[in-house]
Amino acid sequence: MQSKPTGSQRIHTFTGGDIGAWRVDKIKTVIGSPISNVSFIEMVQSDIATMPETLTGKSGWQLRGVTSNERYVTHDEKAALVSKQSGLGRESAICGALIPIRKNQVWWALAQDERRQIIEEQSRHIRIGMKYLPAISRRLIHCRDLDPGAPFDFLTWFEFAPADATAFNELVDALRATPEWMYVEHEVDIRLVRAT
Amino acid sequence: MQSKPTGSQRIHTFTGGDIGAWRVDKIKTVIGSPISNVSFIEMVQSDIATMPETLTGKSGWQLRGVTSNERYVTHDEKAALVSKQSGLGRESAICGALIPIRKNQVWWALAQDERRQIIEEQSRHIRIGMKYLPAISRRLIHCRDLDPGAPFDFLTWFEFAPADATAFNELVDALRATPEWMYVEHEVDIRLVRAT
Repeated sequence: MQSKPTGSQRIHTFTGGDIGAWRVDKIKTVIGSPISNVSFIEMVQSDIATMPETLTGKSGWQLRGVTSNERYVTHDEKAALVSKQSGLGRESAICGALIPIRKNQVWWALAQDERRQIIEEQSRHIRIGMKYLPAISRRLIHCRDLDPGAPFDFLTWFEFAPADATAFNELVDALRATPEWMYVEHEVDIRLVRAT
Repeated sequence: MQSKPTGSQRIHTFTGGDIGAWRVDKIKTVIGSPISNVSFIEMVQSDIATMPETLTGKSGWQLRGVTSNERYVTHDEKAALVSKQSGLGRESAICGALIPIRKNQVWWALAQDERRQIIEEQSRHIRIGMKYLPAISRRLIHCRDLDPGAPFDFLTWFEFAPADATAFNELVDALRATPEWMYVEHEVDIRLVRAT
């Protein structure tokens, strides 16, 4: 849904550690193994190689992924999303969420039409998300083909104003109740507040 | 279409250089800039880090990508392909082809249904390929999300017997005549003969 930067700009690196632009409010393991507790998260739109080592600290972690072409949305859905969505970095959007997700092997072995069927015709993922635009800004970052064997397939990133925090909870609750989420085998929900 | 190895097994590295299991017969630049001439190509199903440096030689090159989930085929198409296709490494398949391809920005900005429409409903890519199974074994390797900014989006790999070389030429000619190929901005066709 975002603009299409080329090359290394498409890579996003998240560090969890002792410093960063986002303070961790709470970390909830939705399913699967937990992630190490950290106090701050930084998101940098570049590769790990250019990331300052000081960011992660001793118990910290790094997650990275890449923005890519749309995998499921149709032309009409894309047009509707683009007309309604807001970009990242809004001044009012001081709440954030980083929700890394991994889907299971059954999901990835499905054909394209089967995955589309589950995502939209059964789960209404795109329609549900649309209801929360432009209040909830988001970016989808893919890990699976950048680092095969990485702990997550996707890093989903959200920004919203404090007044929309209840709406954001509704959104993630609605998605977690869908047939699509039966294929999610690892999910961690990290809530953040802008620190700088 | 291949089996689903996990982790680093999904990464494929190709080296062009002075040694390798495949001898280069000819290299043809179909569109875009040429690739350096090399005498041999090696395909290794692992990451660059574990690739012997001796393989590429001084004027050589490396290309790498990752096998991934299907992006376009439906359940029925996948079942038909799986029932008909042959694996790599057949003793009779001493002819090979490595055809790296990059599609343009217009292609990648299209929605999923638009790309599917061009690939199959307009270009019959899947149906054309099906006609040449099981004679032509193939593997599709994705580069775009592994190395953003890489020179190619895909590395397509084929193996076939000398008796099927004419059929293979028909296949690539048929695909290059499709509407899908109007989006291809870089393509190099490297023909190979098994050397070992």
